[in-house]
Amino acid sequence: MLGFYSTAFSQSGYGLWLDYEKVNDASILSDYQNQIRSVYFLGESETLNLAREELKLGLNSLLGSSIDFSSTNSNNASITVATFDQLERKTQRKLKKIDIAKDGYYIGHDSGKIVITAKEDIGILYGVFNFIRLLQTQQPIDNLAILDAPKIDLRILNHWDNLDGTIERGYAGKSLWKWQKLPKYIDQRYIDYARANASIGINGTVLTNVNANAWVLTPSYIDKVAALADAFRPYGIKVYLTARFSAPIEIGGLSTADPLEAKVQQWWKTKIDSIYAKIPDFGGFLVKANSEGQPGPQNYGRTHVDGANMMAEALEPHNGVVLWRAFVYSEHDATDRAKQAYSEFVPMDGKFKENVIVQVKNGAIDFQPREPFHPIFGAMPKTALAMEFQITQEYLGFSTHLVFLPKLYEEVLQADTYQQGKGSLVAKVIDGSLDNHKISAISGVSNIGSDLNWTGHPFAQANWYGYGRLAWDPYLDSETIAEQWLRSTYSNDKDFVKPMTDLLIESREAVVNYMTPLGLHHMMDTDHHYGPGPWVSELPRPEWNPTYYHKADSKGIGFDRTKQGSDAIAQYADPVAKKFEQLDQVPENLLLWFHHLPWDYTLSDGKTLWNSLGIHYQKGVDQVREMKKVWEQMSPYVDPISHKEVSMLLDIQLHEAIWWKDACMLYFQKHSKLPFPKAMEKPKHSLKHYKSLKHPYAPGI
Amino acid sequence: MLGFYSTAFSQSGYGLWLDYEKVNDASILSDYQNQIRSVYFLGESETLNLAREELKLGLNSLLGSSIDFSSTNSNNASITVATFDQLERKTQRKLKKIDIAKDGYYIGHDSGKIVITAKEDIGILYGVFNFIRLLQTQQPIDNLAILDAPKIDLRILNHWDNLDGTIERGYAGKSLWKWQKLPKYIDQRYIDYARANASIGINGTVLTNVNANAWVLTPSYIDKVAALADAFRPYGIKVYLTARFSAPIEIGGLSTADPLEAKVQQWWKTKIDSIYAKIPDFGGFLVKANSEGQPGPQNYGRTHVDGANMMAEALEPHNGVVLWRAFVYSEHDATDRAKQAYSEFVPMDGKFKENVIVQVKNGAIDFQPREPFHPIFGAMPKTALAMEFQITQEYLGFSTHLVFLPKLYEEVLQADTYQQGKGSLVAKVIDGSLDNHKISAISGVSNIGSDLNWTGHPFAQANWYGYGRLAWDPYLDSETIAEQWLRSTYSNDKDFVKPMTDLLIESREAVVNYMTPLGLHHMMDTDHHYGPGPWVSELPRPEWNPTYYHKADSKGIGFDRTKQGSDAIAQYADPVAKKFEQLDQVPENLLLWFHHLPWDYTLSDGKTLWNSLGIHYQKGVDQVREMKKVWEQMSPYVDPISHKEVSMLLDIQLHEAIWWKDACMLYFQKHSKLPFPKAMEKPKHSLKHYKSLKHPYAPGI
Repeated sequence: MLGFYSTAFSQSGYGLWLDYEKVNDASILSDYQNQIRSVYFLGESETLNLAREELKLGLNSLLGSSIDFSSTNSNNASITVATFDQLERKTQRKLKKIDIAKDGYYIGHDSGKIVITAKEDIGILYGVFNFIRLLQTQQPIDNLAILDAPKIDLRILNHWDNLDGTIERGYAGKSLWKWQKLPKYIDQRYIDYARANASIGINGTVLTNVNANAWVLTPSYIDKVAALADAFRPYGIKVYLTARFSAPIEIGGLSTADPLEAKVQQWWKTKIDSIYAKIPDFGGFLVKANSEGQPGPQNYGRTHVDGANMMAEALEPHNGVVLWRAFVYSEHDATDRAKQAYSEFVPMDGKFKENVIVQVKNGAIDFQPREPFHPIFGAMPKTALAMEFQITQEYLGFSTHLVFLPKLYEEVLQADTYQQGKGSLVAKVIDGSLDNHKISAISGVSNIGSDLNWTGHPFAQANWYGYGRLAWDPYLDSETIAEQWLRSTYSNDKDFVKPMTDLLIESREAVVNYMTPLGLHHMMDTDHHYGPGPWVSELPRPEWNPTYYHKADSKGIGFDRTKQGSDAIAQYADPVAKKFEQLDQVPENLLLWFHHLPWDYTLSDGKTLWNSLGIHYQKGVDQVREMKKVWEQMSPYVDPISHKEVSMLLDIQLHEAIWWKDACMLYFQKHSKLPFPKAMEKPKHSLKHYKSLKHPYAPGI
Repeated sequence: MLGFYSTAFSQSGYGLWLDYEKVNDASILSDYQNQIRSVYFLGESETLNLAREELKLGLNSLLGSSIDFSSTNSNNASITVATFDQLERKTQRKLKKIDIAKDGYYIGHDSGKIVITAKEDIGILYGVFNFIRLLQTQQPIDNLAILDAPKIDLRILNHWDNLDGTIERGYAGKSLWKWQKLPKYIDQRYIDYARANASIGINGTVLTNVNANAWVLTPSYIDKVAALADAFRPYGIKVYLTARFSAPIEIGGLSTADPLEAKVQQWWKTKIDSIYAKIPDFGGFLVKANSEGQPGPQNYGRTHVDGANMMAEALEPHNGVVLWRAFVYSEHDATDRAKQAYSEFVPMDGKFKENVIVQVKNGAIDFQPREPFHPIFGAMPKTALAMEFQITQEYLGFSTHLVFLPKLYEEVLQADTYQQGKGSLVAKVIDGSLDNHKISAISGVSNIGSDLNWTGHPFAQANWYGYGRLAWDPYLDSETIAEQWLRSTYSNDKDFVKPMTDLLIESREAVVNYMTPLGLHHMMDTDHHYGPGPWVSELPRPEWNPTYYHKADSKGIGFDRTKQGSDAIAQYADPVAKKFEQLDQVPENLLLWFHHLPWDYTLSDGKTLWNSLGIHYQKGVDQVREMKKVWEQMSPYVDPISHKEVSMLLDIQLHEAIWWKDACMLYFQKHSKLPFPKAMEKPKHSLKHYKSLKHPYAPGI
């Protein structure tokens, strides 16, 4: 018996990291209660009203008592909340040296009172959410001086949501957007979604799939989009749409979408003006062009620059932007797929208009468990580059596997491109500081759907949360994020927080080990990308086949991207390229990404490549076993239904980690003809069995 | 501002009619508290444990205090709950004359104590839910003597859910079944679903779409189905599957699915045995064969009897049933579509095996806002007939329009077929009492999906609830159901219950008036069936066109099903046929179903048909306006978020009722060439405008 609705519902995970439970540590609670007795909250606006209600909800719930709120009497208030220009003169004077950046806030003290202030209303909302987080995570509040602001301007979710409600690579149910009932019906969930995003600083959302549908640009859909924009606006969230490049033909009645044709330019201008007439703060367009069958300027012999600039020109008067994706690769190009985006885009550096941002996936292939950072980062100094992370786990076990992605994001953001010398971190490219860009952006491909808990796996909420936190501050470390999320979502008990933080951090390496260790990549089965398919070799496009990537044969395994191979390494700045090129310097966890090596190649620890491969797969399995063990010990800190839920998912994850190990090692053994290393558990089934497994209705396709 | 999650969530509707709130009438509460102080609850089984926990939850929540439960000490218990054979000897003696039928229960008194008893464990669970309903609806409990049992054996939901998670005619999100995560992950929602169904007596669920997919019969899916069956079993719910007739070819490797071929019979026998090996209480198959492109026995020159009996024979040793749908119509048959199912099935009466149940839609066309009862009812006395109602609102405004369907169901169940003389109600056909069948069944096409509130429209929950209540007792009246649902879901305040009961009852006639008054039918736009499309005439199959059904021309409107026309009326028993045939006797609300009449035909109230048509459409619009007005007054009894939610939906419903009126009347005016009646508000737009409206991504297709 799993239990009842009445308990189940409050434990469904719908509340995310925002279920404010009363502080359970008596001494901390009493400290908070002593310090917070009343709030002086100034100002009226949609956003300020939300901030006030949020603070009221947070304080009342966390402190377990009703806190007095006043907008007239500041005398006995323990907290003052107001935009800077509304603060009392003497407080303004004291804080005048504090320079609060755009969207930022300051939390400090003045004459024994806590002050939360900001320049804009939205800063107040962000400040309130951050103040609540302090209490949720049981931090001391007696000596606060927090000056905080987002380091990236546009902090965006990309929803790959189709108009029929399906979600490409969605593993948490259906799209949140109920198009048929819009614009008149505003689902409460839209509000709850906006609130959750605001709580972590996300300020933009692309509503539709990059594999775009022109219908969303028709007037009746624009009305629906406008209704969503209205619902999100008080939370500081702008809406964006994906623009299908051939829309002028499909819904405009034109015979061409050539970006250099005046009538096409006029069509986009008129269309964009009509959008802004309904949505004055519309964010702009995200465009996937000439990639995987999507139409684009190249259909007319034009370039990405021609296409992007045409849209940018029409958006510019409204302060809209174009996010133009660099995710392109062509079946007509026989060179290494990993090289193609760089080859195509880097020569265009400096040619894009200022409101064009080129959006680049974190790695040069496609959201693998581990990839080296994309060589474009740092290589287009005259172009604003946005990072595109995937939050939804397309290649990482869907919403079934527990994988804490901020660890992956951190690895990429902290990577040093060396493009302007040592310290040219990817994070500095993205936040614009390396090359002094006026605008900066980051996108995360959403893992949100209609499931009660939003993300399918309860722990996938941490990836939404962590993405938002890193979009706000790309220099945050993943341990801090893990700890804050765990404290806000489950428990502040140190016997929970410590082992679970370790578990989250470890979970990313676990999935790399049991799926694609040592730099292997793209070995997932066809279409659905769920489960192993290293044997797949007969898809029509060569670079869709796992065999293209691992190149296992009787001699060895790995993709040679050195000078002797595809020379993809040459796309990196010299110090990086040198490191990747040399076998004694290349990081072992990227070894087979860059090198094709014999099965008996000896690694730094003295093991052969073949044995090490088996040992890594085994380690991935063992890590999941350890995660299960740790989780079993967490039952005192988690309600029984949620605990059981994660246990069931970990059981599947373990089962599938073994599946990965067995299927891959059995397949590679066909080539290596070597016995499995002793440390590796014997496969449970035959290769034939694993090859026979079919997943005809896997979600997300 | 719509409000916050923390309040929003408890008001999301997830709790259905089972959110047990403390009784708010002080005198009733104190009466209950006096009568209920402790419970003596006997027995241990999965089902009894659920019943105990449910009663505990219900009493503690409704009475606002912790009730003592004991399984050892009966002395001071105010309620005794036990199966009959576990009751104390003296209680048994007192109750020995009470004959509790299968699945039934008795709630009565013994020596001042309340006794809830039953023969089987599931009866106890049903009794507990019914006892809780008494308290929820604030009924007196001091003199109880309730002997209750379901009148229909198999009370089934039909989920038209596809394996990819979409739902045909689903308007409340995605399928609940997370196939990818099954069998190891049991979503808490499965439990909550089973509990809700058990609370209204539903005891079967067909997991898959009647437009079936053979894959669900493969071993890996049977494991998944078995996991769902395990989750539902304690709640007394059996699982059924749809069987694709061509499965032996598609997944069995055979070259034929001919039901008279031994290898086909053997394939089904083996398949069915393998299902029962995993699911010993598997319910059986629901089959749509030779209908709308589905394969069936006729592909091999065989009959429905051949097909159904083949499956029935293999299911019989396991006590499984075949639900064989009578929903068939052929484009090769030029006769009236309304006649075809009767013509095809009635001659087969007596030829089906005893474990075959022929499942018949309530009317001869397809779930219209109003249809006369299906002429098959009562016309196949030697065959068990199941009723198929549609709970999901395919032709009734999706999950956007508020329509209380139990009123529709009641109208059909109470219809008199006269097949065995006066009093041969459809309800008696269905419950088997008219023709003394051993088995009886009823199916409702589910309106349940992944939406937080399960059914999209909060009031669509009433249709799930009402279907269940009528499946239990097809003689219940819809007012009682409406009142019980309103009290359980919202409020017991009489100023709420009375006007809202009236609103629910009225809502069904409203939709008939603004969509298809006076017996019109099937005027919905193509494919999606949303919104009016009376002009549609060019679909490849004649009977897919609205013009086929309304036959409007310069002379008049309506489908002539009299002797002069298709003579479909002859399929009814004589007294019914006579009534339908004669213009002075046919019910006005079915007039144009049976008769083609001139525009100036005079109705009983002296109005012309044309004017009456306009007045009916207007009345539908006015009724929705009135619903809006009533709802506005209900804000004291409903939380603000839920109130706002329904208000938004009523706004859309009103807008669309006007759309229906305008589009249909403008179109019909092209034929009648008559001015609109004065009482009818002028159309807002032109016919051209209404014809131009497109709904390319309407849900549920």
